[in-house]
Amino acid sequence: MKQYLINDPWCIVEEGFHRDYNEITESAMSLGNGRMGQRGNFEEQFTGKTLQGNYVAGVYYPDKTRVGWWKNGYPEYFAKVLNAANWIGINIDIEYESLDLNHCEVRDFRRVLNMQEGYLERSFVAILKSGKELQVNAKRFCSIVDDEAGAIRYAITPLNFDGKITITPYIDGDIRNKDANYDEKFWDEVRKETAYGEAYIELRTRKTGFHVATGMCVEIEQNGTKIDYQSQPIKYEKYVANRMTLDCERGQETAIYKYAVNLSSLNYDPDNLLADARQYIQRITRKGFDKMLYEQKQAWADKWKMNDITIDGDVAAQQGIRFNIFQLEQTYTGEDERLNIGPKGFTGEKYGGSTYWDTEAYCLPFYLATADQKVARNLLVYRHKQLGKAIENAQKLGFKAGAALYPMVTMNGEECHNEWEITFEEIHRNGAIAYAIYDYVRYTGDEPYLVDYGLEVLIAISRFWSQRVNWSGAKQQYVMLGVTGPNEYENNVNNNWYTNYIAAWTLRYTIEAVEKVKALNPEAFAELAERIHFREEKEVATAKHIVANMHYPFDPERGVFLQQEGFLDKELMPVNDIPKGQRPLNQNWSWDRILRSCFIKQADVLQGFYFFDDEFDTEALRRNFDFYEPMTVHESSLSPCVHSVLASKLGMKEKAYEMYLRTARLDLDDYNNDTEDGLHITSMAGTWLAVVKGFGGLRVQNETLRLDPYCPDNWQSLAFKLRFRGVLLQVSVTQDSVTVENFSAQPITLQLLGQPLTIGKESAETVAIAA
Amino acid sequence: MKQYLINDPWCIVEEGFHRDYNEITESAMSLGNGRMGQRGNFEEQFTGKTLQGNYVAGVYYPDKTRVGWWKNGYPEYFAKVLNAANWIGINIDIEYESLDLNHCEVRDFRRVLNMQEGYLERSFVAILKSGKELQVNAKRFCSIVDDEAGAIRYAITPLNFDGKITITPYIDGDIRNKDANYDEKFWDEVRKETAYGEAYIELRTRKTGFHVATGMCVEIEQNGTKIDYQSQPIKYEKYVANRMTLDCERGQETAIYKYAVNLSSLNYDPDNLLADARQYIQRITRKGFDKMLYEQKQAWADKWKMNDITIDGDVAAQQGIRFNIFQLEQTYTGEDERLNIGPKGFTGEKYGGSTYWDTEAYCLPFYLATADQKVARNLLVYRHKQLGKAIENAQKLGFKAGAALYPMVTMNGEECHNEWEITFEEIHRNGAIAYAIYDYVRYTGDEPYLVDYGLEVLIAISRFWSQRVNWSGAKQQYVMLGVTGPNEYENNVNNNWYTNYIAAWTLRYTIEAVEKVKALNPEAFAELAERIHFREEKEVATAKHIVANMHYPFDPERGVFLQQEGFLDKELMPVNDIPKGQRPLNQNWSWDRILRSCFIKQADVLQGFYFFDDEFDTEALRRNFDFYEPMTVHESSLSPCVHSVLASKLGMKEKAYEMYLRTARLDLDDYNNDTEDGLHITSMAGTWLAVVKGFGGLRVQNETLRLDPYCPDNWQSLAFKLRFRGVLLQVSVTQDSVTVENFSAQPITLQLLGQPLTIGKESAETVAIAA
Repeated sequence: MKQYLINDPWCIVEEGFHRDYNEITESAMSLGNGRMGQRGNFEEQFTGKTLQGNYVAGVYYPDKTRVGWWKNGYPEYFAKVLNAANWIGINIDIEYESLDLNHCEVRDFRRVLNMQEGYLERSFVAILKSGKELQVNAKRFCSIVDDEAGAIRYAITPLNFDGKITITPYIDGDIRNKDANYDEKFWDEVRKETAYGEAYIELRTRKTGFHVATGMCVEIEQNGTKIDYQSQPIKYEKYVANRMTLDCERGQETAIYKYAVNLSSLNYDPDNLLADARQYIQRITRKGFDKMLYEQKQAWADKWKMNDITIDGDVAAQQGIRFNIFQLEQTYTGEDERLNIGPKGFTGEKYGGSTYWDTEAYCLPFYLATADQKVARNLLVYRHKQLGKAIENAQKLGFKAGAALYPMVTMNGEECHNEWEITFEEIHRNGAIAYAIYDYVRYTGDEPYLVDYGLEVLIAISRFWSQRVNWSGAKQQYVMLGVTGPNEYENNVNNNWYTNYIAAWTLRYTIEAVEKVKALNPEAFAELAERIHFREEKEVATAKHIVANMHYPFDPERGVFLQQEGFLDKELMPVNDIPKGQRPLNQNWSWDRILRSCFIKQADVLQGFYFFDDEFDTEALRRNFDFYEPMTVHESSLSPCVHSVLASKLGMKEKAYEMYLRTARLDLDDYNNDTEDGLHITSMAGTWLAVVKGFGGLRVQNETLRLDPYCPDNWQSLAFKLRFRGVLLQVSVTQDSVTVENFSAQPITLQLLGQPLTIGKESAETVAIAA
Repeated sequence: MKQYLINDPWCIVEEGFHRDYNEITESAMSLGNGRMGQRGNFEEQFTGKTLQGNYVAGVYYPDKTRVGWWKNGYPEYFAKVLNAANWIGINIDIEYESLDLNHCEVRDFRRVLNMQEGYLERSFVAILKSGKELQVNAKRFCSIVDDEAGAIRYAITPLNFDGKITITPYIDGDIRNKDANYDEKFWDEVRKETAYGEAYIELRTRKTGFHVATGMCVEIEQNGTKIDYQSQPIKYEKYVANRMTLDCERGQETAIYKYAVNLSSLNYDPDNLLADARQYIQRITRKGFDKMLYEQKQAWADKWKMNDITIDGDVAAQQGIRFNIFQLEQTYTGEDERLNIGPKGFTGEKYGGSTYWDTEAYCLPFYLATADQKVARNLLVYRHKQLGKAIENAQKLGFKAGAALYPMVTMNGEECHNEWEITFEEIHRNGAIAYAIYDYVRYTGDEPYLVDYGLEVLIAISRFWSQRVNWSGAKQQYVMLGVTGPNEYENNVNNNWYTNYIAAWTLRYTIEAVEKVKALNPEAFAELAERIHFREEKEVATAKHIVANMHYPFDPERGVFLQQEGFLDKELMPVNDIPKGQRPLNQNWSWDRILRSCFIKQADVLQGFYFFDDEFDTEALRRNFDFYEPMTVHESSLSPCVHSVLASKLGMKEKAYEMYLRTARLDLDDYNNDTEDGLHITSMAGTWLAVVKGFGGLRVQNETLRLDPYCPDNWQSLAFKLRFRGVLLQVSVTQDSVTVENFSAQPITLQLLGQPLTIGKESAETVAIAA
């Protein structure tokens, strides 16, 4: 836990330079616009602790897999998020001294991420070894309006000297991924160009052959007036720059405006990439920094209008939830159905891949409730596009006839992960993808989606489940052997309840979806059935037989489902009995000891209760919660949120709040000592879930929005925005009452605290909360 | 399957140069003497396919572990068998042409490993590009009398020219391990020296700091007379040589004698290593090649007198079994209790480490029956020496109070293996080490061993088992969760029957051993109990409670033990139902598919029936054999032998012979396409088991040797030698009768075919086999 960042409702603030925590601050102050992003690095040279990171969405490298012992079926490569050309660089030299905060005294340092308006600001006075004092004020952003561009205003003011200052804005493409498996470089240079104030470089990724052109244009202002300057073009390998030396006077501000673009061959013809970059640069340079920043603020204001959460009485909580929303919005905008939500977004390169089951299980509800319907829809279309690869993936594991297994980690649909117990066995991910289709249709009512995309995916996943179970002669039931459930502290278990449940549920839902699509659009159904050789009668009959005869391990004595077969053979004990100093277990216990213990990394049976909320009564939930939660160590950042939502449902307010706190400020407080590697983007959606689904009690039942909100004891009030089928609402909760405001031009009828309530257009209703 | 080597009762013969199979031949024709060894490489330069390999026993390198995903508890390094300086090299240059079988025509090529006398011989005529023809006859061996030395006679005869021939005998220490994890070199040079006809180099291993001095002395004969020659010393980095140019005449033989030694700091003071090497070289050079070879033949004759197996009517089988015996004898001689039996011996570097459970489970009986008692004893002392490390290893996994877990793979007692499901969970290896103590004492009657070493090891292993089980509330029995049994096609299972059984058996045997040691030597027992804090009453009571309440999964319907909990939930089917082209499974199925299938890599339940032969009746064996064997794919080279022994016991002669054939010529016929990496040394002991314990029916019961021999239908007769408590026997079996000959000066009473029989000293008895 590090609490050096200052609590503020709208900003992340560092006061004074925390040199040792710089990599953490860089992560926290990352900028992104869904298409490109970067860590909160310094523009000028910095030889201290730093992880330079610039990322371009969708551009990846297939790094050769590294394993100890190769097993048949392992993927040949792991798709790494690529650290790309550094476009923010502006070096400052004053005669023979370089500005480098690692080698000078720093005064009045302040670095601020402004989340309300979407920019990063930094100011400080550097006192060089020579005694010269230089004031720096820098501001930059990744534009969400011009989403392949960024802009920087970097202003320097000599405080106690006159003299020549050399300024070198550059683009450096000689970049290495920190986590490369074999320490290789992933980029080759294609071409580069410099012109007056401008410089361009085009790089190509090895193996995958993505081209990315990065360009910059530099303008200088002195005394508020744009000036001409002499510049010297510089070209090294994978590096371009313009160097200029300016006369600067004491107290006079010189402002460097650096405009930059990153165009990739995903979106542009690679043959014309540099020319396109030049055009783009010229356009944004004409627009200018101030206009771009103004547009940025407007765009962010529009976002906050739809997704803000306000918490009164707890600035740290307020800051935490806004930080999470802000980073989620920076990572994924839903504009491009080829993109997804990387575990670190644009804030680091660890883990690699861009898509995990986190997207469906945790992130989807956030985008469903806070953004246009197409954003969530594109997340689903992404998986439909990769269905062919998922079928190939299943084939590699011996499945046939159109069965699909979606990958654990992927960039392009191919499996990247290479730990057999996860790669091959953590197959419940397939269920989460089916569930996301259900969740999306339930929330939006977009049934045509089922016709056009959803059913095809559901059938392919159901085919997988039908082949993956087997008939147990001993049990006279279907069993599923050799799986890893959501709780990764168990490997290769039999009959994981959650996996069995979601498999059978998928089969049920697929049968329903078949009926629905047949009713909605018989021609489309017939076309699909023909195309994918869907033998309806036989496949549905098999599915029904499995649904009717699936084995669910259960303890009749305690009335709880068993996480897996044999769970009760373990030595059962609460987490509180683990001796002091032995947690987190994954850093203190050997793997076998973790596996045979009863301790649970993250919701497993309870994940089922969370997803299939209305298939179990509250007493069953309570029994299972009381049994499993005390054995849960929550060593996954995705764990506490699910428990928080369930505790809210059970009226266990303190537990719900405790669980909410476990991830609300995970990265801001560097709770797990790993924020320096980047932010836990997908688990940020979990905090949102804890607030809106937990404290807010948001559910959709029978096409109707249902809210059961309460305000945690520690807060005065809580308010969140919400979109539902074209209506924008704000739900405000105090200790005593709930007010729901409808901003839309249509009325809405919802269930509030168990009672139906209609709220007219552009009006609000308040209901008291029973004591 | 490759059958290019010629069948011969005593030799491995290659007729004509099989260029593409050269690495296979090199493996098959490896030489060793327990202290050093080498592959059957060429002396002269060869630029074709070759794996140069020279190895020095006990010298290893801790190569940095490579894993995909680090798990807590993994060892930091993997101890690799080190490829050491090449001392056989003799380059031949004729004017501007180098002798290199890759670049010339080869005639009359013949390479022979003579197993009877222990040397490697090679002859050929090389026709160089210039048309010059050179006859080469080479012979070499690693001396088992001077076991740090080797000698070569390399004779060249120009057939159609006179001229100058340049001869460069060298030592090359610039060696790289083929399987280095990060492609690093493991040796540094310490010093080197050359003198007339001599050259020395001392190298030191990185990290481990072993010093190895390799020296050579060269003598030349022409016309059968030793000649003086002028030589030019050559020194490069890690390389020394003497180059000489000789006038050679057509038809005249020039013989190069190269004497070499490898001295390591395991046995010599590193400060004096070069001087010791010089002395050693001088001694063997004085002895001379012919005398050394004569001694070698004598030594091998002595070995064969005690361990030979003869098979009449099947030359391939005869060759196969002798090859296996020969390679086992080359690998381990039992002279040094710090050494063990590496999986590839001195024939390759794959897998690394020198000690696996193979030693106890497969190799020990071979050395027990064919060598002096001290040989097997030293294998046991080896583990006693490493007990401290085994206790440390268990501590790393959370065990305490002197519990020991022996490593899966080791060089010095520390665990090297890094696959969690094996490293941490394949703990039955601990049981095999306890079993070996039992087996040794049973065979030899050496009860003092229990007092001095055995009991301490047994108590430490028993402490591990006592802590590793846990009480299942659900079963009201002890269970053992999260293990991998001998069948590595199951991972992380619960209640593996074999592991539960050997654990409880260890506890039983330890209790017995405590009583025995107390009776034999109460003072020694008291001293031990004090030293290791053995709380007899409590530990014995715990052990008894576990023994009485251990859970053994069992199917009452079939009357079979279950390989593990839940085995009957699998889809049960015989191996024969696996579609064609899908075997071996480990090259065709993904790991998860293998795991959830019923297919068995190697004996698991049946390994228990093999070890604990007299604890189950034949009908139980038959039921379990009939249930498990048809599901066994035998994809471990250690599998068929156990099944062969059991099939023999069950009178299933055809099955026993089929299983015997599966490994009898595994390497000679390159059955698994991997002989090029080196030989499967430990599984060679398995073939011996199939013959002597299977066909021969060798057992020890109640201090008495028991033999139930038969001769497989395909053979006319089978005879094997056997040592038992000071007596040397030969058992000869035909289809009709058994003759047991006693070569010793004392009589022996044994059980032959179920009847007691006394054989007088130096006499023989023949008994008819009932039809």
